[in-house]
Amino acid sequence: MARGTTNASRGAVCECRASGRSVRSQALPRPCRSGPRRRRGVKVRAEGKLSDLTSVVESQQFDRGMLEDLFEVTKEMERIVEDGAECSLLAGKVMGTLFYEPSTRTRLSFETAMCRLGGKVVSTENAREFSSVAKGETLEDTVRTLEQYVDVIVLRHFQAGSARIAADAASVPLISAGDGPGQHPTQALLDIYTIQKEIGRIDETKVALVGDLANGRTARSLAYVLSKFDKVKLYFVAPDVVRINQDIKDHLTKNGCEWEEVNDLATVAAEVDVLYQTRIQKERFGDKPEDYEKAQGKYIVDKKLVTSMKKGAVVLHPLPRVGEITPEVDSDPRAAYFRQAKNGLYIRMALLTTLLKGN
Amino acid sequence: MARGTTNASRGAVCECRASGRSVRSQALPRPCRSGPRRRRGVKVRAEGKLSDLTSVVESQQFDRGMLEDLFEVTKEMERIVEDGAECSLLAGKVMGTLFYEPSTRTRLSFETAMCRLGGKVVSTENAREFSSVAKGETLEDTVRTLEQYVDVIVLRHFQAGSARIAADAASVPLISAGDGPGQHPTQALLDIYTIQKEIGRIDETKVALVGDLANGRTARSLAYVLSKFDKVKLYFVAPDVVRINQDIKDHLTKNGCEWEEVNDLATVAAEVDVLYQTRIQKERFGDKPEDYEKAQGKYIVDKKLVTSMKKGAVVLHPLPRVGEITPEVDSDPRAAYFRQAKNGLYIRMALLTTLLKGN
Amino acid sequence: MARGTTNASRGAVCECRASGRSVRSQALPRPCRSGPRRRRGVKVRAEGKLSDLTSVVESQQFDRGMLEDLFEVTKEMERIVEDGAECSLLAGKVMGTLFYEPSTRTRLSFETAMCRLGGKVVSTENAREFSSVAKGETLEDTVRTLEQYVDVIVLRHFQAGSARIAADAASVPLISAGDGPGQHPTQALLDIYTIQKEIGRIDETKVALVGDLANGRTARSLAYVLSKFDKVKLYFVAPDVVRINQDIKDHLTKNGCEWEEVNDLATVAAEVDVLYQTRIQKERFGDKPEDYEKAQGKYIVDKKLVTSMKKGAVVLHPLPRVGEITPEVDSDPRAAYFRQAKNGLYIRMALLTTLLKGN
Repeated sequence: MARGTTNASRGAVCECRASGRSVRSQALPRPCRSGPRRRRGVKVRAEGKLSDLTSVVESQQFDRGMLEDLFEVTKEMERIVEDGAECSLLAGKVMGTLFYEPSTRTRLSFETAMCRLGGKVVSTENAREFSSVAKGETLEDTVRTLEQYVDVIVLRHFQAGSARIAADAASVPLISAGDGPGQHPTQALLDIYTIQKEIGRIDETKVALVGDLANGRTARSLAYVLSKFDKVKLYFVAPDVVRINQDIKDHLTKNGCEWEEVNDLATVAAEVDVLYQTRIQKERFGDKPEDYEKAQGKYIVDKKLVTSMKKGAVVLHPLPRVGEITPEVDSDPRAAYFRQAKNGLYIRMALLTTLLKGN
Repeated sequence: MARGTTNASRGAVCECRASGRSVRSQALPRPCRSGPRRRRGVKVRAEGKLSDLTSVVESQQFDRGMLEDLFEVTKEMERIVEDGAECSLLAGKVMGTLFYEPSTRTRLSFETAMCRLGGKVVSTENAREFSSVAKGETLEDTVRTLEQYVDVIVLRHFQAGSARIAADAASVPLISAGDGPGQHPTQALLDIYTIQKEIGRIDETKVALVGDLANGRTARSLAYVLSKFDKVKLYFVAPDVVRINQDIKDHLTKNGCEWEEVNDLATVAAEVDVLYQTRIQKERFGDKPEDYEKAQGKYIVDKKLVTSMKKGAVVLHPLPRVGEITPEVDSDPRAAYFRQAKNGLYIRMALLTTLLKGN
Repeated sequence: MARGTTNASRGAVCECRASGRSVRSQALPRPCRSGPRRRRGVKVRAEGKLSDLTSVVESQQFDRGMLEDLFEVTKEMERIVEDGAECSLLAGKVMGTLFYEPSTRTRLSFETAMCRLGGKVVSTENAREFSSVAKGETLEDTVRTLEQYVDVIVLRHFQAGSARIAADAASVPLISAGDGPGQHPTQALLDIYTIQKEIGRIDETKVALVGDLANGRTARSLAYVLSKFDKVKLYFVAPDVVRINQDIKDHLTKNGCEWEEVNDLATVAAEVDVLYQTRIQKERFGDKPEDYEKAQGKYIVDKKLVTSMKKGAVVLHPLPRVGEITPEVDSDPRAAYFRQAKNGLYIRMALLTTLLKGN
């Protein structure tokens, strides 16, 4: 993780006003680019340096080195929040949220992240219905108007590929908060950060992905990101109707990542470092509600199952849950899903800091 | 009121940044608890000390001493607002509003309160439709997720009892902004504060509650709170179909509070210190609109009635009104309902300060 | 423009906290009034002095001298935004947005303006559905409640004349963000400011107004404002069904402003300093969609047309557009519509500063 520390070691200073103290943020990266304003039309690609980041559109943008750098910045964000004092790192900056479909949880996480860094937020939680989109405006035009006002745009859209289109149109940094069945990159980043933080490493971990692996983009995205690390072993545990797709399995094999499809959750639970449970999405079963009931009830994480897990192992879940983890599990120290939600705040603070600091 | 001043006399300092001055907030209480994080699952009860307050769920939590302490803090809040300078008392703190039903007025009052104390706000004004609730998430899970982000939650819910459930689940302070037909504690607090401020005392006041006393929770709550004071006399003036319920009358009798049901508003008006008018709620009359019309028109506060009131008396109303106080009354100094709305801002500032300061 | 500078020359100082520097805002006006609280019921009228401004209800309020003063303040706002440091000019102030119909673009522009001046915002983006209006509250009562909380109200309403009613009821400054088919004064102000900034003058300009001139309030309002300047020549270029109304033509003639209705956009384009394109509004054509198609396609601003324009000329558009300017035009330096949107931010900052500073 030295790489991260090195290229970021002369970072900005976060002045914590209320306490009168200054917390030196040694891990804050210095973007070397001459400014994002010149970037219009240039495709976002994995560049290997966190400081070169101009937008966050898909988790594939982040190679291992960038992830490690990002984790360093994220740890610094944890210190800022724990400190509790007012932070002025992004004072004077304004974030605009542009949500074409509701996602209260994700929106509030981003907005709080901006607030905790001293920035301000303007927000639209139902852009699809309200904005000039109804009059026929293109997404590109909406973005080019919004960028006249704000310093960074957080976009949630219902169509896969929208985030890329918007980022290409924007001359300010843009972060995708999910684009339909496409990507939800900040979820993948907070998931992988949670594994690093809870387990202490990502290399050589055993991870079970459980639940709806066909439709749930979080499990798919996490599998992709995990494949960047060494000696990770993945177990796929899914009801028959929502098994993992072939493309992921091919990708893992190509990248030398071991994987196995299994039926018996109990055996796997005792084995793994991470049990990543996901929700079976009722809406995917349309006219076959009985299939949903069967799938939903098949793999439940309950107290008995968690007790069988290793001491240092953890249960993760992107939330919301509707019964696939029983509430009695919550008090077990291995239940890490609410801590995982908190990591979402830290990761989003880290991304905002990376994109906006040094502008 | 010495009690309030005493236990709060070495409070925090509110730095008013823009003016360069420091306003010493002598009335700010020092919470003695070791922090709200250890409170999960513990029932909220009347504890007698404002500094022990961890959540605001119902007006019964507040005994007379706590109310007097709260009034002291509230007066300090008035000074902060009048001062006009930027206040940094809650700088670095973030409030999350979680509204499962719309209540623009209450939400804006809470949000402004947080802003005026230097804190920040993240907001959802239609949680019922938007959030993961639609996917089947429990209120407890929603609260446990939101508390990962914010320092205090303001909850408005459509089901009685929700505020208690949420407060028990939360490890950060939670304030109820009303839970359906249940409680609306901050309304009761601002009402009683308004009486104290306008009349100069609460003991030995005569208060007429007018309008829909069966369904309106504000009148009911105010009656409960008033029963904690000495020699208060209550007059209930309601159309037949929406008379006050027996439970309230029993409660008052048990607590030695005099009350009387009367038909003639004019006679009572000349007698009382406080005339608390409420709106007849059309939606309660269902298939009998003619009953509504009759009830609605029965007790109107107009210029003639107000003129007959005592010099120092006041007309209160929780607002909105739709005709039960005529607009010509507004210019009378006894019309205190907009000042009452402003007191809502002060009371909410006081509660936020009490719950968050010293963490 | 000396007039503007003179009466504003000893303005407030904008402290830019993050940078540690102080930017002296020489153009900031000093309102001379004894405070807006005494203004209730007094009609807003053109007063000739920007510092006397108490509300913004219609563009006619601004005579030439006030516009020039406002432009000076606006330029200062540009410097504040370009500086990038946190500004505390309106620190401690809270703006409330009260939108009875959605207008995401306008709302975000106002909210960002307040944020960039160091103020805070409480917001309601769908007041019509949500607020106590549904219970029958008058607009006057809503405004009188909201003013208990906030320092300035931004109102968007669906009924012409509402802004005036609200401003008369309010004892805090109120800015109209559009009232139905009525006025949208801040749009007219940003349009005229854009002409001044892009062309370097307003006197002696030739301006073509193109598109829906019958229904579009922006083109109408701009025509009114332009008539206050010297030797402006207006060209009206509209499909037959949406030609400019007689009242505007009469107004221009009376005010000595030359105008001409023309059919051929190409000829006019080569002539003018400003080509102000507007959207044909589909909803105006009701049961005659074929008329809409014809009108919509008649006057398109494309690359060829723009290339024929003078070097220093500009194309403006209030946005959103849906095809009446082709995207290929965007890269031409004469395409000024996104810069125009940014000017909306500056103008709104200038108005907020004018109304709130010195209170």
